Amino acid sequence: MKRWIAVDWGTTNFRAFLMQGNKCIERCAQGPGLLQIEQGSFEQELSRLLQPWFAQASYPIIMAGMVGSQQGWHEVPYVEAPCTFASLAEQAFSFTTRWASPVWIIPGVRCHSPYQQPDVMRGEEVQLAGLSAINGSARYQIILPGTHSKHVLIDNQSISHFSTYMTGELFALLSQHSILGRALPPQEYSLEVFHFAIELAQRKTPLSHQLFSARTYRLNKEIAEQHIHSYLSGLLIGAELVTCSTTQPIWCVGSPKLTENYAQAAKYLGINLQTIDGDECFIRGISHLYAHIAGEKP
Amino acid sequence: MKRWIAVDWGTTNFRAFLMQGNKCIERCAQGPGLLQIEQGSFEQELSRLLQPWFAQASYPIIMAGMVGSQQGWHEVPYVEAPCTFASLAEQAFSFTTRWASPVWIIPGVRCHSPYQQPDVMRGEEVQLAGLSAINGSARYQIILPGTHSKHVLIDNQSISHFSTYMTGELFALLSQHSILGRALPPQEYSLEVFHFAIELAQRKTPLSHQLFSARTYRLNKEIAEQHIHSYLSGLLIGAELVTCSTTQPIWCVGSPKLTENYAQAAKYLGINLQTIDGDECFIRGISHLYAHIAGEKP
Repeated sequence: MKRWIAVDWGTTNFRAFLMQGNKCIERCAQGPGLLQIEQGSFEQELSRLLQPWFAQASYPIIMAGMVGSQQGWHEVPYVEAPCTFASLAEQAFSFTTRWASPVWIIPGVRCHSPYQQPDVMRGEEVQLAGLSAINGSARYQIILPGTHSKHVLIDNQSISHFSTYMTGELFALLSQHSILGRALPPQEYSLEVFHFAIELAQRKTPLSHQLFSARTYRLNKEIAEQHIHSYLSGLLIGAELVTCSTTQPIWCVGSPKLTENYAQAAKYLGINLQTIDGDECFIRGISHLYAHIAGEKP
Repeated sequence: MKRWIAVDWGTTNFRAFLMQGNKCIERCAQGPGLLQIEQGSFEQELSRLLQPWFAQASYPIIMAGMVGSQQGWHEVPYVEAPCTFASLAEQAFSFTTRWASPVWIIPGVRCHSPYQQPDVMRGEEVQLAGLSAINGSARYQIILPGTHSKHVLIDNQSISHFSTYMTGELFALLSQHSILGRALPPQEYSLEVFHFAIELAQRKTPLSHQLFSARTYRLNKEIAEQHIHSYLSGLLIGAELVTCSTTQPIWCVGSPKLTENYAQAAKYLGINLQTIDGDECFIRGISHLYAHIAGEKP
């Protein structure tokens, strides 16, 4: 089985997987995100990061994520949804490194969300390809939680449309830079407080009003100072999940820590959420895309 | 006419007014907010700030704002709404400075908002007292835009209830610290883009999804890079104003620059918004409260 390298290169992190056929035989989970790399030095940086794997050969490299954005190494135009996974492989941007590795960058996807606003993803489409190879259903919904959480509809083995929720970024902003997070003691997770926030999120109070309750419940000592992050997390994840169907099962793809949080919220709301590891989906998805690129039967 | 001093001391700013009866004869608009003052040095700082006005007398000082909060000089318990303005004067916290000035700190107000969540204000109650002295109507709504915008119902010359929207703080967080504000050129105000955002705000798209459109419209070049602040401002003010009645007139109390923005949004939404200067309301309100404290007929 031939070796190749899969790379997930995002704004704030770099992860690489040394692959043999469809199997990951080694990982490199540490590396600088795009924001830490100067324009013009992507190739040099990649060579340094992958050095341990270059003993004898110039392995093919398949990359996904913000590395294909305007601020990345090479801008790869978005593919318009609805789109098949095969079309992503076909529209990958290819070039060759100084050390003769063939490289492909998988394009991101854009669409109009069900709320009729433009939306984009870069990187998540690979996890979707992986889940699609695992789950044979014709039509299903997926949540990919994170800085910019994505809610996706897969229809007929294609990415139909999606919407981005700024859940993770809003949580970081509010807990680190706003009055709501000011002068907090070390935080402890409270499932009770998290559930209380999910309960409130169902009222559909305007979010910019509801968030202020993280201050007033604290002032009133109705929520303890060490549980404010649990409360904020519940309000924001709740605001996202109250838009979801309670009749259809929904997949949740991500790190175990994040998907566990979403599963807790979903359970409380009566949503049937099935979690799956994001790395597993990424590896499965990028193998599928590579097989297509390499002309092998997936 | 006797002289006295009115002080509005908030988290990030200090403003003082030298008064003669109901008339402001001098202003001091520069001074450090509470966050810049160490606990225990409020008195010394106040003495330094008011020095120019202390030539011959120890004038009475009436203060309002976060100076009465837990993080302020003296914590003054909130008065529970519904409450009259007279009750605020009656529950002012009084003490005497080293230089023999009698001081009163006006309490803030707390309530449960119409969305059934706890809410608080400190400082705005003085502007409300001022507007109430100007506007004789029995029942009306008021918006006080700002970092934490307040929507208030006055009923029978009392503060009935209110809700806080984190409009100003969310705008600052998103424009300064989020991906939406990253690498923007100097901003220009665009009324067209502001209106476009107000139009979208009416769709009641979940806010954490809608905000992401500031990124995607920029990526798609449908909104110019120099108009992103106008767009964000429109989305956030819009999300606040779509909750308002279009059949009843509403007052808007604040700085001319802020109230003008709200007036533009309100006009677009068919809301009858009447703007009034926040300083004028503050001076009128604190005079009213001081007259009550001093036992004079307001």
